[in-house]
Amino acid sequence: MSHIILACSECAAPHKADMLTLHCAKCAAALDVAYTDTPQPRPSTTHAHAHDQGQGHANTHAMPTPLHNTPITLGEGSTPIVHIPNIGATVGASCLYAKLEMMNPTGSFKDRGSAVMMSVAKEMGVSQVVEDSSGNAGASVAAYAARAGMQAHIFAPASAPSAKLNQIAVYGAKTHLIDGDRQAVTDAAVRFAAQNNLVYASHNLSPYFTEGTKTFAYEIAAQLGANPPQNIVIPTGNGSLLIGAHRGFSELLQTGVIANIPKLHAVQARAVMPLVAAFTDETKPAPAARATIAGGIAVANPPRLRQSLHALRATGGSAVAVDEDDILQWQIPLARREGIFAEPTSAAAFAGTAALIASGAIPPDQSIVIAATGFGLKDAMPPV
Amino acid sequence: MSHIILACSECAAPHKADMLTLHCAKCAAALDVAYTDTPQPRPSTTHAHAHDQGQGHANTHAMPTPLHNTPITLGEGSTPIVHIPNIGATVGASCLYAKLEMMNPTGSFKDRGSAVMMSVAKEMGVSQVVEDSSGNAGASVAAYAARAGMQAHIFAPASAPSAKLNQIAVYGAKTHLIDGDRQAVTDAAVRFAAQNNLVYASHNLSPYFTEGTKTFAYEIAAQLGANPPQNIVIPTGNGSLLIGAHRGFSELLQTGVIANIPKLHAVQARAVMPLVAAFTDETKPAPAARATIAGGIAVANPPRLRQSLHALRATGGSAVAVDEDDILQWQIPLARREGIFAEPTSAAAFAGTAALIASGAIPPDQSIVIAATGFGLKDAMPPV
Repeated sequence: MSHIILACSECAAPHKADMLTLHCAKCAAALDVAYTDTPQPRPSTTHAHAHDQGQGHANTHAMPTPLHNTPITLGEGSTPIVHIPNIGATVGASCLYAKLEMMNPTGSFKDRGSAVMMSVAKEMGVSQVVEDSSGNAGASVAAYAARAGMQAHIFAPASAPSAKLNQIAVYGAKTHLIDGDRQAVTDAAVRFAAQNNLVYASHNLSPYFTEGTKTFAYEIAAQLGANPPQNIVIPTGNGSLLIGAHRGFSELLQTGVIANIPKLHAVQARAVMPLVAAFTDETKPAPAARATIAGGIAVANPPRLRQSLHALRATGGSAVAVDEDDILQWQIPLARREGIFAEPTSAAAFAGTAALIASGAIPPDQSIVIAATGFGLKDAMPPV
Repeated sequence: MSHIILACSECAAPHKADMLTLHCAKCAAALDVAYTDTPQPRPSTTHAHAHDQGQGHANTHAMPTPLHNTPITLGEGSTPIVHIPNIGATVGASCLYAKLEMMNPTGSFKDRGSAVMMSVAKEMGVSQVVEDSSGNAGASVAAYAARAGMQAHIFAPASAPSAKLNQIAVYGAKTHLIDGDRQAVTDAAVRFAAQNNLVYASHNLSPYFTEGTKTFAYEIAAQLGANPPQNIVIPTGNGSLLIGAHRGFSELLQTGVIANIPKLHAVQARAVMPLVAAFTDETKPAPAARATIAGGIAVANPPRLRQSLHALRATGGSAVAVDEDDILQWQIPLARREGIFAEPTSAAAFAGTAALIASGAIPPDQSIVIAATGFGLKDAMPPV
């Protein structure tokens, strides 16, 4: 990893790039990958094959990456962007698109982050990893660990959907079910990793995970090159997709590939809304977390909260909370009117988009891409 | 549809291209799309971005298509091809790949066929369709019907996996559960379509469905351009992927894009093996069908059997049957050693590949691509 260091996301203090350092030694904030070699040349977009409804290539050959070797891959990324005019008409948006992140190898966007994080782990000779997850990140890390020939220990809430827990087990990971809230699961994973001297490959904290999710931005720039979206709406728990998207678009702005960064908007369940609360008033504590159907974004204390907040503010975006009824209300229409079967966490983003348009945060004539983050088959089936 | 007709797959008799004609008026065989306009120019492969492990573009801009308008799409196709060296070592193949067809919008390769079939139906002003399916084609047709704003009636075996039946319902299709064997389901669908004067949009019979699956071949040619696979192994029920692959490769051979067609091999469950039986000895009747875990290929009387047989014989391929134990045995190793979670029907193709290498039908030093046709989340979870 000679060409990278880890830089503190708050105070920029430099740290050696390894798999064990997850917090700044000075201020305890989360770390990011920083590149010490010369800037990469501007990616060519000549071969982008960008088209309206379909898959585009990200031209990531000039994208800075922490990897030296052939990465551990299952063909993640390059997900299609599809026009969803029927849902657009419902929410009053004339130009509404969904990026189908559910079409990743394990059924969620998490595969972008896992591919890079596990590739770095492989390069560093890691043989076992510990992760905590409500389900999607656990299944993703389990799959890439299997592909890399590593043993994964996945800590998950005992209440996680059985389809997700089964998927983790199928990939051969050792599942550790923990009672209590989401924080209890994280605490148990951290303790287990420390006690057994194992790498805590956390999708919340690992700087390599977010480095993986930035391909989301590169792809959007390639797919909608001539007409970049003005707004991107992301269901947000730990914020790994939001932060990765901001990182990717910032790189593309810096290298001159894009002229503007889309406004990034975060959607949370009202039951668990630390980012929405901080966006509204940073001086007040967030309301206590309650249960939500949107398990993928039920994160009460995201370690990268300030980075998520920065991504929203720096791009002129916003944050919005949606009720449980609203979330439930969007899953079926999305399937019935556009043919897209997304899990409830993804449905929250559609509810949030409707709210953002209704409130005027997104003007109805602006273009919008919604991240449809997880496949509907991964969660409990909706009543039909 | 002025540039196409339907030609009989057996006697070549021409028919008008509509959504209602499914059998040759002379010999009752199934029909194929035939193009009446001038041959298309050779597709350029300059921008193929073919690479070993990842997604490639199919350069389908020069591919003959029955469509005039913007197709009904959910971003199907462009699935990755991944190297699977661990499974390769197990079966004794030095160069083994999987094409992850499970990464289609509804979780199976059927989306390639549904996209074209439903686009043609939309162009022809169809508002309701009838389909019969063990699950995957039903979910796929239901999703594309939703996207096209049509009502779908899906006839399915009462014994189909609940995840697949639920998925069909989520997309808003009307599900008709039928007791009895797979043929009883087909008979009920045909009767219902006739009685109600509706279009029978059968993935088994529709000439447009197979016309959609041919993109599978175009993609492989683009992805592995410099090193086309010598063998492709396909789990085969109705044969829509096998026949579409043969059609696509034949077009690519004719236009000079490829110099040779890969050998196409079919895998069936020993419990339902009409194609294997016909491949072995056409004069003897196939053994009676029994129950199999590989529901996606449990088709006792495929209407395009002779076309499937032709695809195998014309390419120098073969057909092999695998036992239930063998099928079950492959699902978990594929997930644990390569990170790929496929449904049992897909696992059958891996069991079949092992058998084809063991029997000498595929030399172990030849390259092989296996079609991993459906996502593991779509079926009953394997015991772990």
